[in-house]
Amino acid sequence: MSNLLKEIEEILLMGPGPSDVPDEVYTALATHTIGHMDPYFITIMDEIKTQLQKVIKTSAKLTLPASGTGSAGMETCFVNLIEPGDRVLILINGVFGMRMQDVATRLGARVDTLEFEWGTPVIIDAVKKKLDINTYKIVAVVHAETSTGVRNPVAEIGTLLAGSDTLYLVDAVTSLGGMDVNMDKWGIDSLYSGTQKCLSCPPGLAPIAFSDKSVAALKGRKTKVPNWYLDLTMIINYWEGHTRAYHHTAPINMLYGLYQALDLVLAEGLDTVFRRHLENHQALVAGLEDMGMQMLVDEQYRLPMLNAVKVPDGIDEAGVRKALRMEHKIEIGAGLGPLAGKIWRIGLMGHTARPENVNRLLAALKTALGK
Amino acid sequence: MSNLLKEIEEILLMGPGPSDVPDEVYTALATHTIGHMDPYFITIMDEIKTQLQKVIKTSAKLTLPASGTGSAGMETCFVNLIEPGDRVLILINGVFGMRMQDVATRLGARVDTLEFEWGTPVIIDAVKKKLDINTYKIVAVVHAETSTGVRNPVAEIGTLLAGSDTLYLVDAVTSLGGMDVNMDKWGIDSLYSGTQKCLSCPPGLAPIAFSDKSVAALKGRKTKVPNWYLDLTMIINYWEGHTRAYHHTAPINMLYGLYQALDLVLAEGLDTVFRRHLENHQALVAGLEDMGMQMLVDEQYRLPMLNAVKVPDGIDEAGVRKALRMEHKIEIGAGLGPLAGKIWRIGLMGHTARPENVNRLLAALKTALGK
Repeated sequence: MSNLLKEIEEILLMGPGPSDVPDEVYTALATHTIGHMDPYFITIMDEIKTQLQKVIKTSAKLTLPASGTGSAGMETCFVNLIEPGDRVLILINGVFGMRMQDVATRLGARVDTLEFEWGTPVIIDAVKKKLDINTYKIVAVVHAETSTGVRNPVAEIGTLLAGSDTLYLVDAVTSLGGMDVNMDKWGIDSLYSGTQKCLSCPPGLAPIAFSDKSVAALKGRKTKVPNWYLDLTMIINYWEGHTRAYHHTAPINMLYGLYQALDLVLAEGLDTVFRRHLENHQALVAGLEDMGMQMLVDEQYRLPMLNAVKVPDGIDEAGVRKALRMEHKIEIGAGLGPLAGKIWRIGLMGHTARPENVNRLLAALKTALGK
Repeated sequence: MSNLLKEIEEILLMGPGPSDVPDEVYTALATHTIGHMDPYFITIMDEIKTQLQKVIKTSAKLTLPASGTGSAGMETCFVNLIEPGDRVLILINGVFGMRMQDVATRLGARVDTLEFEWGTPVIIDAVKKKLDINTYKIVAVVHAETSTGVRNPVAEIGTLLAGSDTLYLVDAVTSLGGMDVNMDKWGIDSLYSGTQKCLSCPPGLAPIAFSDKSVAALKGRKTKVPNWYLDLTMIINYWEGHTRAYHHTAPINMLYGLYQALDLVLAEGLDTVFRRHLENHQALVAGLEDMGMQMLVDEQYRLPMLNAVKVPDGIDEAGVRKALRMEHKIEIGAGLGPLAGKIWRIGLMGHTARPENVNRLLAALKTALGK
C-alpha cells in the first residue's frame, strides 16, 4: 500500500462524525467484492433490510440503504415525495433543518418554516398553531440536531400529526443507533440516517425507510421523480421481489461494512447500546463541569452522542482543537453558523462512546486548556 | 466478523463490473477512518484530484470523485448543466445512452436523440447532419457502451463540436483506465466515470471532470442546481481552496480505496495498462473463436474490456452463467434489453485483465458448454 495511506494515524474520532470504527467493520470492508447481482449478495441485502427494520423499529417494507452519505438520504426522502408546488413545513433549529429547507426549495416545494433558537428544541405549541392554520403535504424535523446537540420532540410532533394526511419526515442521521428511534410508534412516514455516526461504519450509505403512506404518495406521483439515481420507484425493484432488476451498481463493500456494523449493534442489544451512550455522556458532562465548563443545551434536551460545550472566555477555540488533534490524536468538532467559535462539539457516537475515550478526552482537554 | 461475510467466496469477476480488486486496495479500504475535515485527509483529496487529472488527461480544475456510484456521475454532470428547456442531443446505441435520455428528460431538458443499432457504433455523418439543423446546449455520448461492447467515436464527435458553444458530455464509466481517454485533446467538457470497472476499486465513487467551459455554464445558471447533494457549486468549495467548506461528509474509506487504485494504475503506466487490456482481449477473442463462437461487434469497434459474445444456438444462456458461477466461481454478465438471452458479456477490466483469468474462463466455458 502507498506511503500516503500507511502514514494515516489512528485518530480518536470525537467530533460530529465520523466515529471510531470497530475492527470487525474494517475487516468487512476488505472482504472480497462480489457482483451486485450475485445470489449471495442478494442474501446480504435481505439481511441488511431486516437489520435496518430492527434498528429503526419499523415494519416498513421500503427500508434500504441509499447509495450515498447521510445528505443523500435527505435528498432521497424529499425528492421522492415532493412534486412542484407541494406545501412543506420545516422546523428549524440548526444547520440540518436549514439544509432541509434548501433541499425542499430546490425541488419546487412551497416551503414554510418555523425557526427556533439554536441550542433550544422545537416548541410543540408553535407547531400546533401552525398546523391549525395550514395544511401541509410534509412536515419535516431533525431528531438530533448535530450542529447544536439538541434533541427535538419527535414523538410529540408525531402525535400532533396522527390521523392527518400529512407525511412526517424525520432526520435520524445522528440519533439512529445511539438513542431510541421508533419509526412506527412515533408515526414517522419517511426517515433517513447515515452510517458514520452511532452505527460506526465509515460514511458512504444512508439508510432510509418509507411507511406505506409514503409509498402510496410515491406511487401516486403525477410526475417522475426528478432524480434518476435516487428514484425509489426503480430502486425498490432491485431491493425487493424475485426479479431484482438492475438499477445502479450497489456500493458492495460499503454494504458489507454496514451489515457488520448493524450486526454488532444488534448483538449488543439496542437498550444496552443506548444506556452506554447515556452513561458516557453523563460522565463526560460531569468531567467538563468539574473543569468549570458549561454545556450549551439545557439538561433535559441534551443529546447523549453530541455534546455542545461552550468555549471558555479568553480561550483560543481553534488552537485547542488543533492541539487535541496534533498532540493528543483526538478530533473534536467546531461550532457551525452562529455558533462558530463559541462551542466545541464532542461526539460520543457508537464505538467511540466508551469510558476510556471520555477519560482520554478529559485529560487531553485539561492539558490543552493549561489546567 | 459475522459468518455471513466470512462465507463470501472469492469469485473471479469477469462480468460488466465490478472487476477484481487488488489486495492493496482492500488494505486501503480497511485503513483507519479519519475526519473529512482532517488536514491529512485534505492532503489525500488533493492527491486524488491530481491522479484523476492524469488518468483522464485533463487540466480541468474541477476534477473530483462524486459521492455515489457511476450513475451518480451521470446525474452529477446532467443536473449541474441542465436548466429547464435546455436543448440536449443524446446519441444512443445501448442501455447507458437510454439512461442519459431518461436522466436529462427528468431534469426538464428538451431532449433529441439519434439512435443506432445496438452492437454498432454512433455514425458520425448522422451526427453531423443533426448538428447542421439544430443547435444544442449539450451533446452527450457513451464512450464504451457496457451493454453492447461497442466503442463510440468520441474523438471524432469532439472534432465536430470544436469551436461551437455546445458542451460535450461523455460517459467514460467503462473506458477510463482500460483504454485511452483524453478529455482535453478530444474537447470533452463534462466527463464522468465509475471506480468499479477498469480502475478496480469497489463501486461507490464517480470521478467527474468539468472543463472551464462547463464551469462557466455552471456559474452562469439562472436557477440553483435542483439537487443539493450533487451541487458542484458547493462541492468545489470542499475540494478546492483554503477554506474547505464542509458540504456533505465524504465517503472517506472509499476515497482511500480510490487513491490506492489510481496509484497502482499510474505506477504501471497508462500505456502499459491499455496494452494489457488489449492483449488479453485479443487472447480472449481468439480463444472464443477457436471454440466456434462469434463476437457481437465488428472487430474495429470492439472494446477491449467488455466482450460481447453471441450465445450459440441451442445453449441455455442462464444455465451456462449459473454453472460458471457455482462450479467455476466465475461471474460473467448477461445481455440487457434487446440483447437479453442473446449474448454474454465478458469483462476484462482492470485487475481482471490478466492471461491466467482469460485461460481460466476459456477452460471453464469449454466445460460448461460440454466441449
